[in-house]
Amino acid sequence: MSLKLTILGCHSATPRTFAHPSSQFLEINNRFFLIDCGEGTQTQLRKYKVKFSKIKHIFISHLHGDHFYGLIGLISTFSLLNRQTELHVFAPKGAEEIIKLQLKLSKSWIHYPLHFHELKSKKTEIIFEDENVKIYTIPLKHRIYTNGFLFQEKLAERKLNIASVLKHKEIEICDYQNLKNGKDFIKNNGDIIPNQELTYNPPPILKYAYCSDTTYFEDIIPLIKGVDLLYHESTFLEDNIELAAKTKHTTASQAATIAKKAQVKKLILGHYSSRYKDLNLFLNEAKLNFENVELSIEGKEFLIENSQN
Amino acid sequence: MSLKLTILGCHSATPRTFAHPSSQFLEINNRFFLIDCGEGTQTQLRKYKVKFSKIKHIFISHLHGDHFYGLIGLISTFSLLNRQTELHVFAPKGAEEIIKLQLKLSKSWIHYPLHFHELKSKKTEIIFEDENVKIYTIPLKHRIYTNGFLFQEKLAERKLNIASVLKHKEIEICDYQNLKNGKDFIKNNGDIIPNQELTYNPPPILKYAYCSDTTYFEDIIPLIKGVDLLYHESTFLEDNIELAAKTKHTTASQAATIAKKAQVKKLILGHYSSRYKDLNLFLNEAKLNFENVELSIEGKEFLIENSQN
Repeated sequence: MSLKLTILGCHSATPRTFAHPSSQFLEINNRFFLIDCGEGTQTQLRKYKVKFSKIKHIFISHLHGDHFYGLIGLISTFSLLNRQTELHVFAPKGAEEIIKLQLKLSKSWIHYPLHFHELKSKKTEIIFEDENVKIYTIPLKHRIYTNGFLFQEKLAERKLNIASVLKHKEIEICDYQNLKNGKDFIKNNGDIIPNQELTYNPPPILKYAYCSDTTYFEDIIPLIKGVDLLYHESTFLEDNIELAAKTKHTTASQAATIAKKAQVKKLILGHYSSRYKDLNLFLNEAKLNFENVELSIEGKEFLIENSQN
Repeated sequence: MSLKLTILGCHSATPRTFAHPSSQFLEINNRFFLIDCGEGTQTQLRKYKVKFSKIKHIFISHLHGDHFYGLIGLISTFSLLNRQTELHVFAPKGAEEIIKLQLKLSKSWIHYPLHFHELKSKKTEIIFEDENVKIYTIPLKHRIYTNGFLFQEKLAERKLNIASVLKHKEIEICDYQNLKNGKDFIKNNGDIIPNQELTYNPPPILKYAYCSDTTYFEDIIPLIKGVDLLYHESTFLEDNIELAAKTKHTTASQAATIAKKAQVKKLILGHYSSRYKDLNLFLNEAKLNFENVELSIEGKEFLIENSQN
């Protein structure tokens, strides 16, 4: 079970040559997700060698341009490249209307199945689930309707302790799946061999929480409690705490406070305002509140692997 | 009188790291125009040091993404940078609807005057005129409604031949403007001094024609006759002439034929399909039909200056 996050863009507001707006590519438990899609995301995907064919699910936090303006281009490019596989877009109300209007006016017919999933709840909800991963919204508090997303592995099946299993001749191969599913083994004489003796625990599940954009908002803490990795926006430093409040953004210090209160394992900062030239200021400010913090940097990868216990 | 064209992007279809979609910045007779605005144009403007404040008029040829998807980002960025001066966008029907829908959904209020000028005529028309420049549409033939644009300097006033003027004591300073306007001088005794003796001809006017995207279309020839600079799309080479016809694009050879028939002074090729890795193939093919041809390359500038005769 593993999690790899690639930062495609981590700056706020306007794209610049070396500062792209929000977008991330997440690999978690063999599933792949694109999170936010600012202008130029398709170029960043190419630059950092993310195969377009891996993208089947796109999650848009909100409809501000620096999180969304690259979506129409990516959808169009998929079509120009003769994509056949379906694409699912999870986005606030309005995204579908914008995309479809543009496709209509440019007479660009999409030849692959394109499904929009409209997000509108103000409470957390499960928006995706398969056998490997579960995804929840994290309602945020910004100038417009905004969600973060919690990506959570599903508990894997238990792993057989083969040496122990082979000691019991009554256990046959057809019993293995029950053991992996956590059942005890009942011998013919009625004796019970506890599952714990026959299997190893599965690796703990990994969780990644993406929170951008939001004002300082403690309501998210129960949702992101103990996650392995938290990306939390830090548009400003404390020197602009009033501007942060006014624009419904967060300071690096506040992001660190959230990380600390939610007891997350690692915090990543991002969505930096262009007024700050030295990103280390964000890191230093956050570290005063929370030690295990890193900067998101374009092209940087965060890898977490949980081995079998 | 001068003309400087900066190529911001000259590739077709999908943006890539080193291949941006259509956009050009034109300076002509002290006026500034942005022509087409594919995704990433704002980043290219920064890269090639074009000041955002110079852009007051944007011309969109058609609503295919590689000519248009960068417009919403540029308009938003202008707003984020607290632009106050007005912006005029000349674009086909639908552009205004798309842009305003996106601004509305993102609750991004534009604080500067934003005017859309809807293009819908299938015949050439004057769409802009001031004391320096006149701009005409060049109706093209593509898969959707498309215009090229003809940018034309206005004839400057004549320049005084001071040495000659000073020989005639009757000519006073208050007469100079009439001479610059081309009037003869009438002496008190009724004799006429022809204007030609007192002034120099103004420099010839410069003309730039932008034609992208279009099938091979001879109807444009009268409109672009003798222009100093013609940008004509050349998406394909002759090896794909059938695909060019099917997709309503032009080959390099066809673009050169148009240039030759229209007796233009210089041709620039562009809008290259990504299937061709060596752009010199376009140049070589075009040169068989028309000698004075160059490739458009990102960041390249084409400068034409006409000095006073």
